[in-house]
Amino acid sequence: MPELRKDSITGRWVIIATDRAKRPHQHGSAATEPCPFCSGNEAMTPPEVLAYRRSSGDSNAPGWSLRVVSNKYPAFEQTVRYQARNDGLLESTNSVGVHEVIIESPEHVTDIGSLSKEHIVLVLRAYQQRLRHWRGDPRWQYLMIFKNQGEQAGASLEHVHSQLVALPAIPKDIVDQVDRMSKHRETTGQCIYCEMIKKEIECRERVICLNQRFVALCPYASRFSYEICILPIDHRPVFEDILEQEMTPLADTLRDTLARLSLVANNPPYNLVIHTSPKLASADGHYHWHMEIMPQLTRAAGFEWGSGMHINAVAPETAARSLRDARI
Amino acid sequence: MPELRKDSITGRWVIIATDRAKRPHQHGSAATEPCPFCSGNEAMTPPEVLAYRRSSGDSNAPGWSLRVVSNKYPAFEQTVRYQARNDGLLESTNSVGVHEVIIESPEHVTDIGSLSKEHIVLVLRAYQQRLRHWRGDPRWQYLMIFKNQGEQAGASLEHVHSQLVALPAIPKDIVDQVDRMSKHRETTGQCIYCEMIKKEIECRERVICLNQRFVALCPYASRFSYEICILPIDHRPVFEDILEQEMTPLADTLRDTLARLSLVANNPPYNLVIHTSPKLASADGHYHWHMEIMPQLTRAAGFEWGSGMHINAVAPETAARSLRDARI
Repeated sequence: MPELRKDSITGRWVIIATDRAKRPHQHGSAATEPCPFCSGNEAMTPPEVLAYRRSSGDSNAPGWSLRVVSNKYPAFEQTVRYQARNDGLLESTNSVGVHEVIIESPEHVTDIGSLSKEHIVLVLRAYQQRLRHWRGDPRWQYLMIFKNQGEQAGASLEHVHSQLVALPAIPKDIVDQVDRMSKHRETTGQCIYCEMIKKEIECRERVICLNQRFVALCPYASRFSYEICILPIDHRPVFEDILEQEMTPLADTLRDTLARLSLVANNPPYNLVIHTSPKLASADGHYHWHMEIMPQLTRAAGFEWGSGMHINAVAPETAARSLRDARI
Repeated sequence: MPELRKDSITGRWVIIATDRAKRPHQHGSAATEPCPFCSGNEAMTPPEVLAYRRSSGDSNAPGWSLRVVSNKYPAFEQTVRYQARNDGLLESTNSVGVHEVIIESPEHVTDIGSLSKEHIVLVLRAYQQRLRHWRGDPRWQYLMIFKNQGEQAGASLEHVHSQLVALPAIPKDIVDQVDRMSKHRETTGQCIYCEMIKKEIECRERVICLNQRFVALCPYASRFSYEICILPIDHRPVFEDILEQEMTPLADTLRDTLARLSLVANNPPYNLVIHTSPKLASADGHYHWHMEIMPQLTRAAGFEWGSGMHINAVAPETAARSLRDARI
């Protein structure tokens, strides 16, 4: 059973999840092992909690175009009762939460960028559907979707997939961020993301691509080289409230951006995170959902782990120009 | 010229240092290039600011056993005047600071653990001397020593070395940590580190090794598998105030711990950080210096970068037992 522990000096929570060391690794020499995410190998995963099928096929059998299952090696478990321990110095809880896997294709594709636009819409719809499902559950305060693309970005299986977590508490970094957004709103009356998007679109220097609904840009204070943020231009707090007419423009922006990144940075490993509004009174209606794409071209080192500050060797303006000018 | 930028939403500062992309890389196929840190290649580095020599040899010429030079590809530069820009949304300063390299051996050794105990004392003395030098300079509020061991831990050159930075401001994470220490002291009258050390030594479960002066342990809420913390058992705020009689016991503890880590985790890449008291009124006399050793056996992935929380697949108790039982 995974355990959540708090460092009483830094205030950081960590998840001690020893079962995760048993995860299969399918890169390099192990690539001949059967892939648990491929069509035909449904019995290798926990039973599906959602699947999209063209016909009315059986559950947990071939015929699907997307499947969602519980994570077999979860960092969080929802089947247990929340229990906390605190002796004033050592603080822990059991690691209660939801940990699901979205298997994004029945074929052994290794990059979401190589799926068709229509299939990416299907993936976004699955994110929406699972997030909506868990948002309605009063146990969870925080929902997140993430994707690890490539072994160097922490993926243990290469078959295209992403993960959903739902947690009973909001991570410290996210609470801090919402606090800053609230302060900015109180001072200026504005959503800080809306204001930033407006300035960035006017200035263009860090914009990669843009349509009526979404913008992809390299953040001014990017932690990672070629870091990208995709945001709805209009104020939208909750990702899973995405409108039907926003689906295709978002799939377009994501596919276009990933193709540019792949070309410019030679198909780099990356992490993708969808930040949707946490269930926090001060965030309600005020958050602005966004998607972070963080290429892992270098590694955080002693300076970063010691100080919490990142060193980035590619200026966001340079990265944005290269990505904008890429001939995809 | 490197630039410091603040993310106005997360409050994080990042350093945009484009010259660092020009650093030489000496791992793998490039290992035949001459090493700028080897004896005889002194002209390949900036002039030394400190060197230990057995005889009275010339500066910047062979005959040294340890050399300190400015970083040729600095993330911080001390030669410029501090300038800040802030339009309410985009905030930046030029990256003023000190960035030095401690070259820890004239021979092409690649691991501090393979140096003799006496030579490690020499290294600690150099840390002490350079930190004392910069502590006296009123421009710098924050001093840190770090070491990247192995390419996977972010080292660009394999020749054994570490780095010193001195910054005009204290990183947010460190300020937060000092705040927590202050709160604990106000509530309990105790240094939180002193209290934690006492409990850990009593319980033994997470202790790796111990002498009269120092303890090495696996922190209760370790972010990384086989993470180690070395601390003075007595209350010592400032690393560079280390007593002469503490030098050998610290070198012993460090050498012993690294040998255990190397055996148990198969010579892993790691980051080492020395946290010494920042120049903050609330830390004055109250900090407790410590050395963090963070093996890089897995990579932070989407969950970690998105939430700021780490998942660790090896329980600190298991790690400590393996390290304690290693037959070195």
